[in-house]
Order: sequence, then structure tokens, then C-alpha cells
Amino acid sequence: MSYVAPDRIVDAAISAGVSRAEQPVSQMVVRGILAGAILACATTVAFTASIQTGLPIVGALIFPVGFVIIVLLGTELVTGNFALIPLAVLEGRTSTALMLKNFFFVIVGHLIGCALYLLLYVAVITKMGTESSDPMIAQIIAVAEGKTLGYAALGGSGLALVFIKAVLCNWMVTLGAVLALSSASVSGKIMAMWLPVTMFFSLGFEHAVVNMFVIPAGMLLGADVSLAEWWGWNQLPVLAGNFLGGVALTGALFYFSHRRRITRQTLVTTA
Amino acid sequence: MSYVAPDRIVDAAISAGVSRAEQPVSQMVVRGILAGAILACATTVAFTASIQTGLPIVGALIFPVGFVIIVLLGTELVTGNFALIPLAVLEGRTSTALMLKNFFFVIVGHLIGCALYLLLYVAVITKMGTESSDPMIAQIIAVAEGKTLGYAALGGSGLALVFIKAVLCNWMVTLGAVLALSSASVSGKIMAMWLPVTMFFSLGFEHAVVNMFVIPAGMLLGADVSLAEWWGWNQLPVLAGNFLGGVALTGALFYFSHRRRITRQTLVTTA
Amino acid sequence: MSYVAPDRIVDAAISAGVSRAEQPVSQMVVRGILAGAILACATTVAFTASIQTGLPIVGALIFPVGFVIIVLLGTELVTGNFALIPLAVLEGRTSTALMLKNFFFVIVGHLIGCALYLLLYVAVITKMGTESSDPMIAQIIAVAEGKTLGYAALGGSGLALVFIKAVLCNWMVTLGAVLALSSASVSGKIMAMWLPVTMFFSLGFEHAVVNMFVIPAGMLLGADVSLAEWWGWNQLPVLAGNFLGGVALTGALFYFSHRRRITRQTLVTTA
Amino acid sequence: MSYVAPDRIVDAAISAGVSRAEQPVSQMVVRGILAGAILACATTVAFTASIQTGLPIVGALIFPVGFVIIVLLGTELVTGNFALIPLAVLEGRTSTALMLKNFFFVIVGHLIGCALYLLLYVAVITKMGTESSDPMIAQIIAVAEGKTLGYAALGGSGLALVFIKAVLCNWMVTLGAVLALSSASVSGKIMAMWLPVTMFFSLGFEHAVVNMFVIPAGMLLGADVSLAEWWGWNQLPVLAGNFLGGVALTGALFYFSHRRRITRQTLVTTA
Amino acid sequence: MSYVAPDRIVDAAISAGVSRAEQPVSQMVVRGILAGAILACATTVAFTASIQTGLPIVGALIFPVGFVIIVLLGTELVTGNFALIPLAVLEGRTSTALMLKNFFFVIVGHLIGCALYLLLYVAVITKMGTESSDPMIAQIIAVAEGKTLGYAALGGSGLALVFIKAVLCNWMVTLGAVLALSSASVSGKIMAMWLPVTMFFSLGFEHAVVNMFVIPAGMLLGADVSLAEWWGWNQLPVLAGNFLGGVALTGALFYFSHRRRITRQTLVTTA
Repeated sequence: MSYVAPDRIVDAAISAGVSRAEQPVSQMVVRGILAGAILACATTVAFTASIQTGLPIVGALIFPVGFVIIVLLGTELVTGNFALIPLAVLEGRTSTALMLKNFFFVIVGHLIGCALYLLLYVAVITKMGTESSDPMIAQIIAVAEGKTLGYAALGGSGLALVFIKAVLCNWMVTLGAVLALSSASVSGKIMAMWLPVTMFFSLGFEHAVVNMFVIPAGMLLGADVSLAEWWGWNQLPVLAGNFLGGVALTGALFYFSHRRRITRQTLVTTA
Repeated sequence: MSYVAPDRIVDAAISAGVSRAEQPVSQMVVRGILAGAILACATTVAFTASIQTGLPIVGALIFPVGFVIIVLLGTELVTGNFALIPLAVLEGRTSTALMLKNFFFVIVGHLIGCALYLLLYVAVITKMGTESSDPMIAQIIAVAEGKTLGYAALGGSGLALVFIKAVLCNWMVTLGAVLALSSASVSGKIMAMWLPVTMFFSLGFEHAVVNMFVIPAGMLLGADVSLAEWWGWNQLPVLAGNFLGGVALTGALFYFSHRRRITRQTLVTTA
Repeated sequence: MSYVAPDRIVDAAISAGVSRAEQPVSQMVVRGILAGAILACATTVAFTASIQTGLPIVGALIFPVGFVIIVLLGTELVTGNFALIPLAVLEGRTSTALMLKNFFFVIVGHLIGCALYLLLYVAVITKMGTESSDPMIAQIIAVAEGKTLGYAALGGSGLALVFIKAVLCNWMVTLGAVLALSSASVSGKIMAMWLPVTMFFSLGFEHAVVNMFVIPAGMLLGADVSLAEWWGWNQLPVLAGNFLGGVALTGALFYFSHRRRITRQTLVTTA
Repeated sequence: MSYVAPDRIVDAAISAGVSRAEQPVSQMVVRGILAGAILACATTVAFTASIQTGLPIVGALIFPVGFVIIVLLGTELVTGNFALIPLAVLEGRTSTALMLKNFFFVIVGHLIGCALYLLLYVAVITKMGTESSDPMIAQIIAVAEGKTLGYAALGGSGLALVFIKAVLCNWMVTLGAVLALSSASVSGKIMAMWLPVTMFFSLGFEHAVVNMFVIPAGMLLGADVSLAEWWGWNQLPVLAGNFLGGVALTGALFYFSHRRRITRQTLVTTA
Repeated sequence: MSYVAPDRIVDAAISAGVSRAEQPVSQMVVRGILAGAILACATTVAFTASIQTGLPIVGALIFPVGFVIIVLLGTELVTGNFALIPLAVLEGRTSTALMLKNFFFVIVGHLIGCALYLLLYVAVITKMGTESSDPMIAQIIAVAEGKTLGYAALGGSGLALVFIKAVLCNWMVTLGAVLALSSASVSGKIMAMWLPVTMFFSLGFEHAVVNMFVIPAGMLLGADVSLAEWWGWNQLPVLAGNFLGGVALTGALFYFSHRRRITRQTLVTTA
């Protein structure tokens, strides 16, 4: 009934990749804004749950609320696109240029959406800058410093570490994007997507869009992190790691686990 | 199967906006009464869960019971209408006058429904005014004072703060109203709606209809809040913030993320 | 798909009211016995969960098991009928006499079912009268005394208080009965029904059928409550309050929120 | 959609009763083995959860895993058959002899399946007889003694007590077997079955097949219980009580709450 | 609706066995890599949850995330194949040689996938080898030593013990593989699969693929375990036990509980 078999999931993933690559720039940006802001908000909810219970696993069990809303509403995360659009390129259904254009404008949207949410949220937890007692403030500062200075302290090893965490993160996130296609019903989609997103968050991996919110939020709240440290020790290597995780671990492995060569060649020939 | 794709969600949201704007006044008021009373009741359930466990996140996980009942029964919250009806106006399917009429009479219904529930509930927790030991009493008074005097203490910054919290609140609530349209099955609707409503409640944002219950309830129980303080420092800025959040963050962003210009123009032309 | 729109829920509620009013007396009694005993059993499960965890909200989250079984099996609670059958009378589809006959014989069934379960359950927790150390014994005695002597101590205010708690209780329970009709799938029915039943139980409201078990069970275990105190300070005002809550807050409000006058007149005319 | 109305559930229960009575002996035994072993395994999972959390209600919330697997896989418990096959006999669709034959061979299967699992499980928790520190060992011994010597200490009252607990137990378990027929979807079946099985386990009632595992397991681990005490104070009265609970409280009550006399006579006549 | 009856589940299991036996070697390896890495990742999530809460049952309730993702994505575990492919051999639909070929190449895939994940994960928890304070490190070392040296300390009894735990483990895991076929909807598949996988993990049984990750991970982190100890005291007897559990307890028992002899002979004849 509602279950979509894996070979048809591959088809659906490629179709999604094509349509995402070919949408107008304005939609890419608007979808990126919404998705960035929703993911940022979900991050604050997960931190709230972790702080109140003292159990990070509770935050990880709640965090997927944001990812699920993003997917159900058809907005998009560049991290998910890292798996879907390369498949469409591989099949010759869209071009590398369109793929990169999508990545760029969706990231622009994420930066705008995360900035909007973080400005409003920082205003809320600091009561317009009048208070600093909310435990969330210390939490966000600590996370922002850990995600930048923590790696910098390890030098080259830190760069390798953040890259590995980013690869593993987006392996899981893009499994979620693929699993969303495994069901034609909303309850099935929600349950299936929830699983890998809880996994990556519980293991503390690095997600580029979460970091577009939490690091600058920490900086605004007083974290001792510069713009160069944010991008150099985190945002750029995380984007690279997220890309590799999405393309290689999910995109390629899932593609080759189910795509039949004949089908592909036929498609390429008739295209 | 049960999943409704985002562009068809936009259609459904606009249709819902049209039919809500055009219903008879009596239905607006009756639906507003039911929705207001149910949301007020859900607020007391969430407070009960938070007080017993000492974990506000547990209250936030339970709070959506009220929102879900309201949507499944086809009653309506003005906060949800803040996103749905403006889309119908934007598409030329209904008028601004009908929109404002709906807002007014649904709010009237909410005020009646919340007043009915708060009178009965205050009678219950005070045992007809004979006792004041129920921990819920202190909780409601504290919340009512925090939601008014707390902002007043900050002056103009307080007004900005309550407005921001209202904008963020109704961004999430109206995402819930939209997500309810993403599924044609009850289990899918319930799961999808639950997510953003838990999010706003866990973050302590400001919802106009919740406040129509909790602030006057606190006043009746002895909170040192005047009618002017209730409306000036909370109810009016929260209604304004909820409207902006619904119209701009959900209505407009979701609309422009999926609506194709051609479709819209065609509809306008043929209308 | 599985979602039933509110106006069709009204139709379904009226049809259910008609068929419940017109069934043979023997079925009313048998269904009342089963429903009474199942609700009594669910009450003991909820008390067990509350005592073990020290958190009444956990009991409230589990209590709906009984209500859900009752509805799925097509047995019936008089409290639900308080909302459904009056709608059928209002539409001229059945008579007041048949309605009262249903109420009477279903209540007879409840009294038999609750008595059967309480005799067996009291035998179990007292180990055939040989032990009194089970914490459930003290819990049931305390609840039975609170639900009778607790109100008596307040005099006329107590009578008003128990009545208000009964009105609010059955507002929620009958919302559950209506929400069961909002889905054509079992998972949807279960989720939708669960919500308002958890709400009433968590708030400590008064349900006539629960009390038909817990008060006489307490009396049998040694609570200092007479038959007159049971019926005078609880059972009769709770039945009256449950009736008002079902008829007015759910039946009438939901009916007028969705029923179109034309539809009704047509039906009356063609009847 | 997936919801099966109660009168059609009665039909389905009778059909299930017929096909279970008429299957070959070898299938009865094999299904009984699988069901017995799965239920025994689920009992050890529930005990594990209870011991770790110190909350028996957590064990009760997890215990239905076994029952659900048994029903979804179409294997069978004699306790469920106690409700289903007598209905088929009542309708003249199968004979008492075939019913008793089914009961006998399914019980034989249960005894084999429970024995297999308990031998392997006792080997595991005692590390092949080399250790006795696992808290599960003390738990199983205590349960085995309580379920036999505990009743023996009360004499005739103990026999009545174990019988009552068995009647109440299988009332709930057979409601689960009937509720499994209320849905045509797996998610609905699982949710519906879960409820009454959690109820019986949380209340500590007596289930014949659980006891076929836990009492001999306790004996093997050193409980001071003889074969005669196992069967005399528990297994035989529990089988009798389970039979009465299944036949009378679920089978007969549910049958008479929904079966129409005409339908039945027609079926008998045309048979 | 979505429920698949047991005799059709047998058909589906056999068909799955056939297609898994006949796929190209490259797909076996790729699917094995993905499944091994996902299961390894799920193991680390479950350990995280257990460590944070101090309750292993919480880890067991979360662990099935990995199994569910593996099945929904159509990748495969050799442990599941231990039940499915032998049924296809039994029915004459594939050969023993193809079965063994599948087992071999899927295991090769698992070893690669587990090795990839463990290298990356060990890098993460040791911060590229610069820290050893993460409690997960001690946990993995202890588990790796317990799963090898723990059995070696018992000599021949240890070998029997690890074999029994492997038999029981894969009885449950293959019930999960079969239950995944009991539903045609994703929500049903997820719920049904979840149950037996939680059961095996909560009871501490031995799963060959989990061990392909956790033992070498422990060795890399400093566990005093040699390659010979890993394979001799764990990996080889666990593979053998998993095979017996899958073939005998699930494959054969479920097959004979529902397969009709006539159907089978017909199929063999017409083949």
C-alpha cells in the first residue's frame, strides 16, 4: 500500500533531484529561508529538552520535529540536496551547473533564515539584552565554542575530526531524505524520517545548517569566536563533509545497491 | 496515498480560508467558543503535567492535545485564520472586509469560551473559593503576572519582546494549521500537527488564545494585573505579533515557496 | 482518506444516536455491563501506574485504554450517549422516551458490570480478605471518601463543585466519542479518542461510570461512606452534570458549529 | 477504511474459531510451540524492564510485544482460542470434540515451546550454571513461589484467588484477540491489541501460558515448588479460570452484545 | 487492508529469498556494506542512550532504528537471509550454492561496512586519538572483552553459552524480517519490525553483525582481545548460532505452521 519499494525510491530521489535543480532561484531562496529557520528553531527545542532533563538523548529524540516539518512542507535543506541532485546529474537528467546553482542559493536562504531566527531568539532569551541568566545562553555559547575552538585546539587533527563528523552526520540526514520517499502516507513518512535524524543528533555529529544558527547565535551571545574561526574550523569543512557523506555514503551506495544498469542506460539513451 | 503534496496544500489552505471567511457569523462565534474553551482546557492539562514532573518539556509534549481536537472537529482558532484567510484575499477569492469580520467574531467566541472555562476551572481548583492550596493556583498567578508585569517592567523593550514572542509563536502554530492539510488521514494529521505546537509551547512563546484564558484566570485568582495591563502589555501586542507571524512567516513564505505564478494568474483571470 | 469531515461527523453522530436508541433492551444491558467492567478495570490500571510512578499524569496517559476498547468493540457508555442520542432527538430521528429508556438500561448495565469487576478486584487486592497492605486499598478508600465526604464537607458549594467537575468531565469524554467518528481507520480512531480522555482524567474531573466502580469499591474496602452519601453527594449530581456537559457543551455546540439549517429542515420534512 | 465494525468482528471471530478447530494436529502443535516460546521470551523482556526501572508498569507497557508478534504471525495461544472456538461451536460451525482437540494439542505445543525457551534462557542467565548473581534469577524464583506457594498458604481461599485472577486475565487477553480483528491494517491491529494485554499484565493477573514458562523456570533455578504444587495450585485452576474468562466474559458477552438472532438462525438453517 | 496474512507472508519470504540469492555479487556487497555500517551506527546510538540514562532497556527501545532503516531501504543483513534464503532452497526455487554465495558476499560487505564505521567512530570518540575520557570508550572495551574473554573464561561452557545466545538472538531478528512482510504500509512495517529487535537487544543476545563492529572497535580502543579470540570465541560460533536460530526457530517453524503441503508440491511440480 503506502510502502514504496527501493528501486522506485531511487526513481523518486532522482525526480526530486531534477525538480529541485530546475526550480526558479526565488523559490530556492524562499525554501532555504523557511528550512533554515525551522531547523534553527528545532535546535533550540532540542537544547531546551536536553537542559531540562539533563539527558541529551531526550533532545535527540525531539530534534527531528524540524526535519519532518521541512520535508512535509516541501521546503529543502542543502544537506538533503547533496544526495538527491548528484543522482540526477549521474543519470544525465540535470547538469552540474544547475546543481551548484541550487546549492548556492539554498545556502543563501539558510543563512538568511538562520540569521532571522537567531536574532529573534537571542532577543527572547536575553529579554532584549537585559538578562543573561537563562541556562540556554551558556549552553549555546559552549556549543558554539566547542564547535570551533574545540577543533582549532587540535590543529590538523581537529580539521579531520570535524570533517569526519560532518560526513557521518549527512550520511544519516540524507538517509532520512531518502526514507521520506519510502512511504506515500504522512504517518509513514514521519516515522521513517525520524529515525536517522535522531541518530545523528544523539551522536553529536556536525550539520551545516544547524551550525549556521548555533555558532553565530553563540557569537552574538558572547562566544569568543571570530567569523574566520566559524567558517574556517567549522562551516567550510562541515559543508565539505556533509557533501561527501550525502554523495558517497547515501547517494552512491544506495544508488548502486538498487539501480539496474539496463534501466539507466536506457534512460540515458532515450534522453 | 494519504500525503498531500505542498502545491496542493496551498490550494487547500486557500479553500479553507475562503470557506472560513464566508461562513455565517453564528458559526464563527460557536466555533470560536469551542476552540477557545478546548485550548484553555489543554493549557491546564499541560500545566498539570509540568507541575507534577517538574519538567516543562513534558507539558509541551502534551499541550497539542487541544490544538489537534480543535482542528479535527473543524472548529477554528483566529491564530490559524491569520495564515489561511490572507492567502484567500491575496488570490482574490475573498475580501479584506470578510477577513476582518471573521477575525472579530472568532475572537469574540474565544473570549466567551475562555471565560466560560476559566470560571468553571477556577471554581474547581479553589473548591468554590474555599481553598487556595492547589499548586496550580500559584502557577497560574505567576504566569499571568509574568506575561504582563514581566513585560511592563522592561518598558518599550518589553513591548518589543512580547511582540517577537508572539510572531515566533504563530509562525509555529500556523505551520501546524498548514501541516494538518498535508495528510488525508487522521493519524497523519495528528502526528504532523503535533510537532510545531510542541515546539512553540516548549519555547514559552506567546499565543493570543492561551493568554485569553491564563491572564484573566490569574486575575480572578488574585494576580495583581489590571484589565489595561492585560490588554496593553499582552493581548494587543500578542494579537498583532500572532498576525504578523501567521501572515508573513507562514502564509507568505509558504505561498511563495510553492505557488506558481501562472496558476495564480489563471485563477484570477478566470475568476 | 481516513479523515471524516466535521459535517459528516455530525451525520455519523446522529446515526449512532438513532441506532443506540432503537436497539433491544438486552443489548443495551449487555453492552453496558461490558463497558462498565472495562472502564472499572482501566481505572485500576491507571491507579496502579499513578501509585508506582508517583505521577498522576502517567495514570492519565494510560487511562484511555479502557475508553478505546469500549468504543472499538461497539459497546457503549451512557456518558457518550448523553451527547449522541439527544442529537438524534433534536433531528426528529428518535424519541425522548427511547432516549431515556436507553439511558436507564445502559446505567443498569454499568452498575452490574462495575459491581462484578469490583467484587473480583477487591477479592484480588485483599487476597480474599486476608490482607490489607496493598497500597491500592488505601488509594481506593481515599478516592471514595474524597469523592463523597469531600464534597459533603463543603455543603451546597460541594454540590455545585461536583456538578461543575461532572460537566467538564463529560464535555471531554463526549468529545472523545465524537472524535472516534472522525476517522475510518483504527489507528486514527485510537489516537483521536485518546486525547480528550487523558485530559479529563489528568484534571481529576468526575465521571459517573468510573464512580460506579470506585466509590462502592471503597465502601467495600472500609471507606466511611453510606449508600445515601454515594448517590446524594456524587452519583446523582455527577449523572446530571455529565448529562449537561454531553448535551450542551459537546452535543449542542458541535451541532451548531457545523450543521446547516437547510440540511436539517430537509431531513425533517422528508422524514 | 481499516476499521471493522463490531458485528463483522463477531463474524471474523467465528471464522477464526472454525479454521483453528479444523487445522491439522501438526500445525496446532507447531503454532503452539512458537506462541509459547515467544510469550515466554516476552515475559523475560518485561521482567528485565521492570527490574531495571523498578517500575512494574514499564514491564507491563512492554510485555505486549510477544502477544502482538504471535497474532501477526498467525500462531495461536490456547487462551485466545478459549474465546474464539466456543463461538464457532455455539453457531454450529464446528464441534465440541474438535474444540477440545485444539485446546489439547495447542497446550502440548505451549509446554514444548516454553520448555525449550526456559532451558535456553536459564542456561543464559546462569552462564551455563556457573553463576547465580543475575537479579533475574531471584525475580523468577520469587514469582514462581508466589504463584504457587503464595496461593497454597491461603488454602481454599488461595484456590479461589488464583481462579479469579485467571478469569480476569483472560477476559483482557481475549479482548486483545478480538480487538486484533477490529482492524485490517497492521498499525491498527498492533495498537488495538496492545491495550488489554498491558492492562492484565500491569494488574498481575494469571495467564496459563506465561506460567508454563515462569513456574518451571523458577523450579529449575531452585524455587521450592513441586510438580504437584505447580499444577495443583496454579496451572490447572488458571487454565480453568482462563477458560471461563474467555468463554463467558469475552466470548458470550461480546457475542450477545452484537449478534442478531436472525442472522444466526439463518446461518444455522442454511448450513 | 495493509495486513498480509501469514500464508502470504510465507510466499513473500520465499520470493525475497529467491531474489536475494540471485542478485549480482556487486549488489550483495554494496547492500552488505550499507547494512553493516547502519547497524554499527545504531549500536552506538543505543549505547549512548543506555549510558546517559543508566537504563539498558532504553538503549534496547532505541536500537531497532538501524534494523528498520536497513529493511525499508532494501539493503540486507546476512542474519535475516539465514531465514529467508533457506526457505527458497527448501521449495526448490534456488540452490544451496547460490545461498552460500549470498551469505559469503553479504558478510564481506558487513565486514567492510563495520570497519568503515568503526574507524570513523573511533576517530570521533577519541578526538583523533587525543582523548580517552569519553565514557563510550570504556563501554565498548568492556563489551568487546565480555563478548570474547568472558566466554573464554568458561571454556567449553562458554562456547555453548555464546552459541545459545546467538540462536535466541537470530530467532528474534528473523521474526523481525518476517514481520516486515506482514504489512504493506511503512508505519505497519516499522511497528512490527521494532518489537522482536527490541526484545533481543534488551536480553543481551549475540548478533553477528553487531559484533563485527563492537569487538574490533573495542580492540582498536585497547581491549585485550586477539583476532583469534574475536573469531574463535565469538564471531564463528555466533554466525553458526545465528544460522541455526534463523533456519530452525523462525524459518522451519513458521514455514510448517502455515505452509500447506499441497501448495508446495504443486509449485515444485510446475517449476
